[in-house]
Amino acid sequence: MTQPPIVTAAVLIIGDEILSGRTHDSNMRTIAQFLAPLGVDVREARIVPDVRNTIIAAVQALSAAYTYVFTTGGIGPTHDDITADAVAAAFGRTIGVRDDARAILAEWYRGRDIPFTDARLRMARIPDGASLIANPVSGAPGFQIGNVFVLAGVPAVMRGMLEDIPSRITGGAVVFARTVKAAGLREAEFASALGEIAAERPDLSLGSYPWMKMGPSGAPDFGTSLVVRGRDQASVEAAAGLIASQLTDRGYTPRFED
Amino acid sequence: MTQPPIVTAAVLIIGDEILSGRTHDSNMRTIAQFLAPLGVDVREARIVPDVRNTIIAAVQALSAAYTYVFTTGGIGPTHDDITADAVAAAFGRTIGVRDDARAILAEWYRGRDIPFTDARLRMARIPDGASLIANPVSGAPGFQIGNVFVLAGVPAVMRGMLEDIPSRITGGAVVFARTVKAAGLREAEFASALGEIAAERPDLSLGSYPWMKMGPSGAPDFGTSLVVRGRDQASVEAAAGLIASQLTDRGYTPRFED
Repeated sequence: MTQPPIVTAAVLIIGDEILSGRTHDSNMRTIAQFLAPLGVDVREARIVPDVRNTIIAAVQALSAAYTYVFTTGGIGPTHDDITADAVAAAFGRTIGVRDDARAILAEWYRGRDIPFTDARLRMARIPDGASLIANPVSGAPGFQIGNVFVLAGVPAVMRGMLEDIPSRITGGAVVFARTVKAAGLREAEFASALGEIAAERPDLSLGSYPWMKMGPSGAPDFGTSLVVRGRDQASVEAAAGLIASQLTDRGYTPRFED
Repeated sequence: MTQPPIVTAAVLIIGDEILSGRTHDSNMRTIAQFLAPLGVDVREARIVPDVRNTIIAAVQALSAAYTYVFTTGGIGPTHDDITADAVAAAFGRTIGVRDDARAILAEWYRGRDIPFTDARLRMARIPDGASLIANPVSGAPGFQIGNVFVLAGVPAVMRGMLEDIPSRITGGAVVFARTVKAAGLREAEFASALGEIAAERPDLSLGSYPWMKMGPSGAPDFGTSLVVRGRDQASVEAAAGLIASQLTDRGYTPRFED
């Protein structure tokens, strides 16, 4: 049986506002969760400022290293929206207002009685040769050039654009994951058991993620999540079951999560 | 008057669990907000998987490009905790259990009646020549090597380790920011006004961040945040005031935020 290929992606979040810590990014997580069942595994994410050369370098590096790249942010109507120009430059393409994008915007605004101003026309700037990505939420299209998908930064708009992605990509093996959560477990207590299981199952990836926070009563709430990942669902479930039974043997009450 | 220098930082988040979208990262934001008042400006963040060569390449690239680098994650007791070894390799240093780190762990566990197992001893693996970063929350130290600070991934532990950072860094100019929030404003409506202000104030960075979500009544709640950033607080406030007055002139009710 032929194994399905490994298909990878990177996410490039563009925007000073995320980097400063004032705005919280949710797009990386949304994209990873959207792509996983399609058989595309997000393997890197970068957050960069609205700086032309930084965006160009990141697009080129990620485009060369991964099957697909998804950018978010910087394609709006204002002076600091420089993503489209930077992506064009990364691919050595020219960029200008394109008739197809202008027509989409003109119809969108006409139907909503919104004036089609010069600022809005800026959103019709699309690199030469790129294909438009539909924006059912706010009209202004994203675009695809090579293996790079350029999406909006506003989460609701970005999610709408993702609907136009599945037909454009070819997924590979789906990565299945199963989490076994053990309250009260310090991760070191299960480290050697987990290491032994990992050594016996080189096809799986086993991770250990401790958590610790203040509980509602002021007492620390802590534990460890053991996560099994792999491309064969039965193997993933079998390993998760083994972990759970070993935890039960040690007196913990494991809980399965997706 | 001598201008204070521009001091930059990058954050490197290490962990499959963040990349997969199952776990939400809060460390990037915590670090950015911690460093900002110290005059250190986070200019890039990367999220990479628990893959040795990927970590090495990212540490080397970021260490060369920014004044400081902060890594989080992958320094625990389990087989998938490979950050310390990868950072040592990135700097061409050897790594092994160090007596100073072992002594800290031994005392921590002795005082808490926790057995000092082989798995826990793994957390005393520290690169040759690195200085230890105190961990007041869970004992096992982080470390500094060159301009790279290696911190834990658990947010509560990471925050504790940050307390040991200020004495190790020299900050530069503080970046001040002021947000002017206008409900109901579509960003294109203020794009040319903002562009004109930006062109007149090259010392400032002006950003425009639209938001859109469903409000509690089901009606869309939308607007735009205009953000002014700069190293001279009076200039920042003056520009924010100008933006607010122009918004008021257009019939909006601007709100100032930090």
